[in-house]
Amino acid sequence: MDLRIDAARLLSRLEELGRVGATGDGGCARLALTDEDRQGRDLVVTWMRDLGLDVQVDAIGNVVALRDGREPGPPVMCGSHIDTVATGGIYDGNLGVLAGLEVLETLASAGVVPRRPMAVAFFTDEEGSRFAPDMLGSLVYAGGMPVEEAYDLVGIDGARLGDELARIGYLGSLPCPGLVPHAYVELHIEQGPVLEHHDEVIGAVTGVQGISWQEVRFGGQFNHAGTTPLALRHDAGFAAASVAVAARALARELGPPQVATVGKLDLRPGLVNVVSGRSTLTVDLRNTEGDVLADAERRMAEEIDRIASEEGVTVERRQLARFDPVQFDDRIVGLVEETAHGHGHAVRRLPSGAGHDAQMLARLCPSGMVFVPSVGGISHNPAEFTSPGHVEAGANVLLHVLHRLAEEEIVS
Amino acid sequence: MDLRIDAARLLSRLEELGRVGATGDGGCARLALTDEDRQGRDLVVTWMRDLGLDVQVDAIGNVVALRDGREPGPPVMCGSHIDTVATGGIYDGNLGVLAGLEVLETLASAGVVPRRPMAVAFFTDEEGSRFAPDMLGSLVYAGGMPVEEAYDLVGIDGARLGDELARIGYLGSLPCPGLVPHAYVELHIEQGPVLEHHDEVIGAVTGVQGISWQEVRFGGQFNHAGTTPLALRHDAGFAAASVAVAARALARELGPPQVATVGKLDLRPGLVNVVSGRSTLTVDLRNTEGDVLADAERRMAEEIDRIASEEGVTVERRQLARFDPVQFDDRIVGLVEETAHGHGHAVRRLPSGAGHDAQMLARLCPSGMVFVPSVGGISHNPAEFTSPGHVEAGANVLLHVLHRLAEEEIVS
Repeated sequence: MDLRIDAARLLSRLEELGRVGATGDGGCARLALTDEDRQGRDLVVTWMRDLGLDVQVDAIGNVVALRDGREPGPPVMCGSHIDTVATGGIYDGNLGVLAGLEVLETLASAGVVPRRPMAVAFFTDEEGSRFAPDMLGSLVYAGGMPVEEAYDLVGIDGARLGDELARIGYLGSLPCPGLVPHAYVELHIEQGPVLEHHDEVIGAVTGVQGISWQEVRFGGQFNHAGTTPLALRHDAGFAAASVAVAARALARELGPPQVATVGKLDLRPGLVNVVSGRSTLTVDLRNTEGDVLADAERRMAEEIDRIASEEGVTVERRQLARFDPVQFDDRIVGLVEETAHGHGHAVRRLPSGAGHDAQMLARLCPSGMVFVPSVGGISHNPAEFTSPGHVEAGANVLLHVLHRLAEEEIVS
Repeated sequence: MDLRIDAARLLSRLEELGRVGATGDGGCARLALTDEDRQGRDLVVTWMRDLGLDVQVDAIGNVVALRDGREPGPPVMCGSHIDTVATGGIYDGNLGVLAGLEVLETLASAGVVPRRPMAVAFFTDEEGSRFAPDMLGSLVYAGGMPVEEAYDLVGIDGARLGDELARIGYLGSLPCPGLVPHAYVELHIEQGPVLEHHDEVIGAVTGVQGISWQEVRFGGQFNHAGTTPLALRHDAGFAAASVAVAARALARELGPPQVATVGKLDLRPGLVNVVSGRSTLTVDLRNTEGDVLADAERRMAEEIDRIASEEGVTVERRQLARFDPVQFDDRIVGLVEETAHGHGHAVRRLPSGAGHDAQMLARLCPSGMVFVPSVGGISHNPAEFTSPGHVEAGANVLLHVLHRLAEEEIVS
């Protein structure tokens, strides 16, 4: 099969969807279950219906559009999300959904009907910007949270999720957890700098990093910066800075793919001439290997204790988030890699540093992802950009990977 | 001479002055040239007049109360300030003024008239909390700023200093710079923990630390904490934390009295999962030795450059303040030490980490300071406290030091 998607059509849809909730600076804001999200959903559903797909909405507002295969059975599914952060770009999530639609349209236009049914889905509230946690729709789809619990989530604006779902007309009848696909493949922008840095076009995503977020609070003693000798200080700010430096050193020592980030660090009172009496910081540790991540957490905890003890400050810790790493299906990772090579692209196997719906689907079925480069690694920003050539390359890889999976024999 | 001051009278006046602008939590707020400051000034001036002193007000509102000696000539002066910060205690500044008054009253009550005239002064706006810079009144007194320039200073509340001075009735006729004393000695609470830590009663202050304040801004690249490998980061937050750690290491290496403090450190955007694109921090370096302080500044600048270069971030620097160290008069430091020893007190020679009016007077005449312990090193806080016994000890040392200086021969 040497079919290719219609890049102009895909790009035009990306732009049209990007105009819904456009923020005027090249970005868009379609927070989950807002009026803008409804408009975006309505537009995509219209395109799905125009293509003759069977559009179904489930109890958490996930939308699944199905196309029959030559034989009945679990579909090969692709998809992503169309909600955005408040300062979102037009590629994050949207690309995976619209490329999936483009794949189905390309096959339909060419009269190709694979053995298996195919589906393109968009999942509710992937960003988690209005209703935490993120990846909510796919989590509920995969059975990770009861739908009733999800209904009672309260958004940053005080709205109840269940009410908003009904209000925008996307409280569907399909039950959750949802149908189990034969396989799931998601095309997404990398949202990081690695592919661009190595001048590669396609990422065969091996899994999603495990995440450990903790908040650390040090309690020291407010002191005058001039009158207090070093030996008599209990400087909560120095302790916090030391943790940030130690986190980097630990990640360097463990080596890639271990990363460590201190993105938040507050000192109190925060004055030039006062030794900090209190400080708060966050430590974000990630690794694709669960045991290395656990090791990093243990060693970081030891470092924090050592620093607190040496500086004579109290320490409190709070786990903010903890997700184990997800490994994608070896065969699908290989298939992405092989397909991209076949298309003449430079390919890299790499883990995802960000969370994606695919990690929830991976609980249900063999899953994988295709990454295309993000210029400057920039995402969640109006400046988010992926070149038209890379959009096209990614969609064509998706087309052929899905087609291969959809031709696989159905054993009942 | 074995005279002793009346501790009960001194403590009672400290408490009475502390009730003016009392904040209800043991502290008081008498920001410079406010109505509360006026009330405090009026009270102290009443006490000065009751004692028969010749009270004079100068063009910047400094109040100098004089008592004749056996011979005419430049007076031996003591004093401090009675303005406070918004969260002030009742000892900072006030102790030096009221102890000076107590010294003059003790001498008068005993019929002791030293050779030289004696003076007790309080200087306008030492704290600088309403009108920057701090030590303003003594700065103008010493000729460090023209009085017309001072009049045009605008306070945090938008008020013009000259107007406020006139409004509260303390725009005096005595010219600035003021009369040059024979010597100046200021009793003050330590505002630091050193004397208490070493169980000492009297500090013979050797000088005031030089101060170097700078603001450092790093410009890096906002990045996703999950998707950006360490090697591709330009983390402005890591650079800032590294500077805080390097500052401490530098101060340790230079040894006491070098101190270094990073009291302010802001990361942007300040989110758990975002590598900081911008950071701002302050570095406060202090030393009593001008050449060591300059060396610390030079080495700190090199460290900052090295950190910025290694992390690939831009760096901007801004000097916020720079004062050379002040050395007090050797003979007065020795006299304080000898007198305190003579009174049976444990004494320490130590530099002041905070600024004081005495450092301005040191431009005019041999000057020195007497410190008494601050419990817990706490100051600028309603919890500021110095024990009655230490207040008494400090005032008696002041009495005898001033008396010795006032008996010195007058050579014209």
